[in-house]
Amino acid sequence: MTTITRDDFLRMDANDPLANFRDEFFLPKGGIYLNGNSLGAMPHAAAERAKCVIEHEWAEGLIGSMNTAGWYDMPSALGRKIAPLLGAKPNEVVLTDSTGVNLFKVLSAALKIQPERRVIVMQGSNFPTNNYMAQGLIANLGRGYSIRFAEADDMMDAIDQDVAAICITHVHYKTGHILDMASITERAHAVGAAAVWDLCHSAGAMPVDLNGCNVDFAVACTYKYINAGPGAPAILFAAERHHGKYFQPLTGWFGHRAPFDFDRDYEPIGDIRQMLSGTPPTVSLSLAEIGIDILLRADMDAIREKSMRMTDLFIELVEDRCGKFGFELVSPRDAKHRGSQVSFDKDDGYPLVRALHERGVLCDFRAPSNVRFGFAPLYLRYVDVWDAVEVLYDILATGSWKASQFQVRSAVT
Amino acid sequence: MTTITRDDFLRMDANDPLANFRDEFFLPKGGIYLNGNSLGAMPHAAAERAKCVIEHEWAEGLIGSMNTAGWYDMPSALGRKIAPLLGAKPNEVVLTDSTGVNLFKVLSAALKIQPERRVIVMQGSNFPTNNYMAQGLIANLGRGYSIRFAEADDMMDAIDQDVAAICITHVHYKTGHILDMASITERAHAVGAAAVWDLCHSAGAMPVDLNGCNVDFAVACTYKYINAGPGAPAILFAAERHHGKYFQPLTGWFGHRAPFDFDRDYEPIGDIRQMLSGTPPTVSLSLAEIGIDILLRADMDAIREKSMRMTDLFIELVEDRCGKFGFELVSPRDAKHRGSQVSFDKDDGYPLVRALHERGVLCDFRAPSNVRFGFAPLYLRYVDVWDAVEVLYDILATGSWKASQFQVRSAVT
Repeated sequence: MTTITRDDFLRMDANDPLANFRDEFFLPKGGIYLNGNSLGAMPHAAAERAKCVIEHEWAEGLIGSMNTAGWYDMPSALGRKIAPLLGAKPNEVVLTDSTGVNLFKVLSAALKIQPERRVIVMQGSNFPTNNYMAQGLIANLGRGYSIRFAEADDMMDAIDQDVAAICITHVHYKTGHILDMASITERAHAVGAAAVWDLCHSAGAMPVDLNGCNVDFAVACTYKYINAGPGAPAILFAAERHHGKYFQPLTGWFGHRAPFDFDRDYEPIGDIRQMLSGTPPTVSLSLAEIGIDILLRADMDAIREKSMRMTDLFIELVEDRCGKFGFELVSPRDAKHRGSQVSFDKDDGYPLVRALHERGVLCDFRAPSNVRFGFAPLYLRYVDVWDAVEVLYDILATGSWKASQFQVRSAVT
Repeated sequence: MTTITRDDFLRMDANDPLANFRDEFFLPKGGIYLNGNSLGAMPHAAAERAKCVIEHEWAEGLIGSMNTAGWYDMPSALGRKIAPLLGAKPNEVVLTDSTGVNLFKVLSAALKIQPERRVIVMQGSNFPTNNYMAQGLIANLGRGYSIRFAEADDMMDAIDQDVAAICITHVHYKTGHILDMASITERAHAVGAAAVWDLCHSAGAMPVDLNGCNVDFAVACTYKYINAGPGAPAILFAAERHHGKYFQPLTGWFGHRAPFDFDRDYEPIGDIRQMLSGTPPTVSLSLAEIGIDILLRADMDAIREKSMRMTDLFIELVEDRCGKFGFELVSPRDAKHRGSQVSFDKDDGYPLVRALHERGVLCDFRAPSNVRFGFAPLYLRYVDVWDAVEVLYDILATGSWKASQFQVRSAVT
């Protein structure tokens, strides 16, 4: 490893089948953006799309654009587009609301499959908004529901015949550890529980096979590896076998059988649109299509391969060059079990991250001591991996970073 | 009335204190936009704002914009801005999610005030998404909750000591009839019920005094008279006296006491932000500020006065010139009881609306026979009222409209 040079990384870029996608994104000059797992970079076409939606569809088309510009159908139309990237059928996915609100809907639906059971299995250490949503849901339901928290090593044991549903995040937001969707879902089904998955850190970053794993419901974020823009509406998946049979309580007019009849009483439409609630945020939703279209032109296997290679190289370089400064790998060492990010445990991680930011290496910090680097294969180069470690080494070797006092925290997952 | 001429309307425009606001909006050339009650027109500044949010804040600022561009605080910051237009305190309002999702949250909160009661009073004839949301909520709650539907004339009687909460829309989406927020809320409180109001067709169109009426919770749309853009995030109001005491079940990380501590369990923040759930759609939310800022510069009393005068004039002209073609006024004749729209019952209303569209007069149709004209005082001229009736008369007099066969329906409220 010590004999590898920057030129080797440049050669990898020259041979990278995804290299040209970088040109489709705006990236900070002189910086290396390793926060694509928080917020994906802006595709140039998104700016053009926004101009069209606002200055043409809204300004000129006005309310007529609900039909003529396809606003009304957009949650389903974008769902149809992105479905193949998730191993879903076109009629099983919509884009709508936030990931959290969507989780509330799908978990409500999942709990009705085994209405006599009262336990939900979740991973307590993962990004907690899912826990919060589940806690709000069961407080609203009453009737003795509870959450059984488990971690990767005791999850299988936690899934027993008391469990109504599991609600698990595929890739861990801190460590990048991938849970085995197929075997955990299989275990859930073996005991009669429904399987709900959160794909926030996997959708767009790796192949996902929801139907291959027989998943019941899923949610995912679009503003990370799908590059849909800040706070863009989230993905919701409901397996076709449940359509027309489940109940979700956010029963808005977009999920009504005949929304323009303005009937007094709710009657669910029997398809995936039953998961829609109110009017979606058109401008933010429109931009999502740009990121989706780019991903559809890329080869997801090539994305995954590049992601594994970049993160392997990053781990090797950091441990080789910076190991003496006390970095402990938190992410799985085996790339097969690792998402598109690398986390290290590091004392004084916070001022180190600040110092990296000042040198243009944008990564983030998660309390108490987790330093997290995200690798978005569509727009990062192999040479960025080399250069990021160069900067890291330089900061550590000079020791200047310990002087940094600036106390902020990055603000998304 | 028969002696009034187009010049009189031009003189009204010359004396209109709001006349200059029209220049701040893009309006269709050669058209008269009477659907501002469905989707407000685009302020020119919204296009500029979108460009800044996308090409500067997202593209260049990337995830750092959560702090540096104020993304994280935006739901509360915009709430603080719009609060005075609703008679609310700055700390009582947020912009987030859709109107329907917000209704789910506030109605959940309202029902906990009288936890032993099981009846919700609603107006069955109004825009039904609120009914749908309430029906979803009570289906989720179980425990014997029910909705008691009442109309304007029997609403007071319907509010008795069985009622946990009323959930009423201020201005009727079809007729424009204004319900008396003060007296209905007073009645609710007299029997110990909580008062939830929906301001979709009043916010931005007339003075609203939530605290003056002692309202407990409210929601409102921003994409109608606030001109925030298609599907822009909605308004949510919770009276300060309830802060820290209520429960709403969509418990996402934006409503957590310390969202960046990533604690496993939900702990509500004690202020209005408890009504926030997941990450909001930043681009759509940002645009809302433009519409709010314009309204803050206008005099709301002048808006209301112009609205009443325009709708009075429209009714008089239609009845005087087109009455013989069979128009029955559905909206209240007294402007004090009428929102910023006028509805007529008209046989063959649907092809008539199509014919009006073809001549540039954009209004809408609600089944079975409701023809609806919205008047947004910020960008409509008095002469538009005259010209719209001219076109209407011309279509009716020639009879050509009955040939129209095109069958579509407009797609929002």
